[in-house]
Amino acid sequence: MNLMLLTADEARDGLATTDARARHLLKTVHAGIGSTVHVGVRGGRRGIATVLTTEPRLTFGIRWEAEPQAPLPLEVLVGLPRPQSARKVLHDLASLGARRIRFFKPAKGDPAYATSSLWTTDEWREQVEKGTEQACSALVPEVVHSPSLAAALEALPKGGWRVALDPYEAEGPLVPSKGAGGPALLAIGPERGWDAAERDALRAAGFSLRHVGDRVLRVEAACLAGGALMLAGLGCWKAHRPLV
Amino acid sequence: MNLMLLTADEARDGLATTDARARHLLKTVHAGIGSTVHVGVRGGRRGIATVLTTEPRLTFGIRWEAEPQAPLPLEVLVGLPRPQSARKVLHDLASLGARRIRFFKPAKGDPAYATSSLWTTDEWREQVEKGTEQACSALVPEVVHSPSLAAALEALPKGGWRVALDPYEAEGPLVPSKGAGGPALLAIGPERGWDAAERDALRAAGFSLRHVGDRVLRVEAACLAGGALMLAGLGCWKAHRPLV
Repeated sequence: MNLMLLTADEARDGLATTDARARHLLKTVHAGIGSTVHVGVRGGRRGIATVLTTEPRLTFGIRWEAEPQAPLPLEVLVGLPRPQSARKVLHDLASLGARRIRFFKPAKGDPAYATSSLWTTDEWREQVEKGTEQACSALVPEVVHSPSLAAALEALPKGGWRVALDPYEAEGPLVPSKGAGGPALLAIGPERGWDAAERDALRAAGFSLRHVGDRVLRVEAACLAGGALMLAGLGCWKAHRPLV
Repeated sequence: MNLMLLTADEARDGLATTDARARHLLKTVHAGIGSTVHVGVRGGRRGIATVLTTEPRLTFGIRWEAEPQAPLPLEVLVGLPRPQSARKVLHDLASLGARRIRFFKPAKGDPAYATSSLWTTDEWREQVEKGTEQACSALVPEVVHSPSLAAALEALPKGGWRVALDPYEAEGPLVPSKGAGGPALLAIGPERGWDAAERDALRAAGFSLRHVGDRVLRVEAACLAGGALMLAGLGCWKAHRPLV
């Protein structure tokens, strides 16, 4: 764990020793009084926490970073994939720093995917939080669902650099140096691909159909490759700095 | 399965009905006489196979593509990660189309990773083959091991575009438009990062230390993001075409 997400209350009052994060720190990492750990408040600042007490609660003294980390201008639309893929999409796009992940029900999708325990329990939230913690970030992506691609397109912010990955009807490769202004809006189809009406809707909404070569990537790999190419094209990557 | 890898003998003589691939086609996909499936001979041509017989052997008539798919000029050096990560690295770099994956024992690594059943059995080979089949490709990456980063650097082809991902001491972002000539040589450190001697060795070997923003990616995500950026920079991505 590169960072531990906390609520503002937990940052102030500490954690019960029965909390899973506290148990991890005390039993697995063998943290004690004076140990330090990176922490962050969801959507807010990060800091370096020093353990002050381990009983009756695990409490911290926290030196906060001066400025919160900058969010990245990337929203990814994803045709709802099988739960095993969706878990990786959630984790890996959170690590990459996507601001929003918007799932839609694709024409060539399986309605049963939406009833998975991934979505009916809080497991989806655990996945984006784990991915955010892996990235040493506190900016957890917003995760939203749209009933169809048309509804997802309606809900997008205006303008932006709009790219849909499509190995079959692409106009050309996704070229990162051709990035116009942000935000980057990336659309990734389902495993079975876009159907004709979806391609028409994407083009009508100003999306350029692009490929990443003639290899067919899994949904989660396409999210990472496409997202990295668009963020690189926008030139918005800052170097890592020590928190405080 | 987007493509089924075969040997040249299997392409000619077919598969025993007890073969796992034959069972998958007959029992799961419910293929019958006249069904078609994409096939490829490891390292060679792909084609569209039509089932001719299902008993006593599963045999095919194959229309081969006119030209074999072009290999991509990407070699990735990876600090040997935990087996769970190595499986994804093997699969996903095969899907991306890396020509070679070279694992080395990193300074901050765990020697036990090398003794995993992933490496002592043929499981590593299954992972690269699955990744290649996912990509609808027959060009299975070569997988090699070096005892150290120094040995891995010695074994590289001369020249090329040399980039090591490093969130901590990067000179700047990995910018795909700055690609010189290939081949792309990408070095990915272990989970715990490069040590000082490894950074010196990379710089001495002409590697530029670059970042992909201030988010810390898992090894397997860094392989995909870095590999995609370098392939895009080389401008070597061709569009997908129907095989025949």
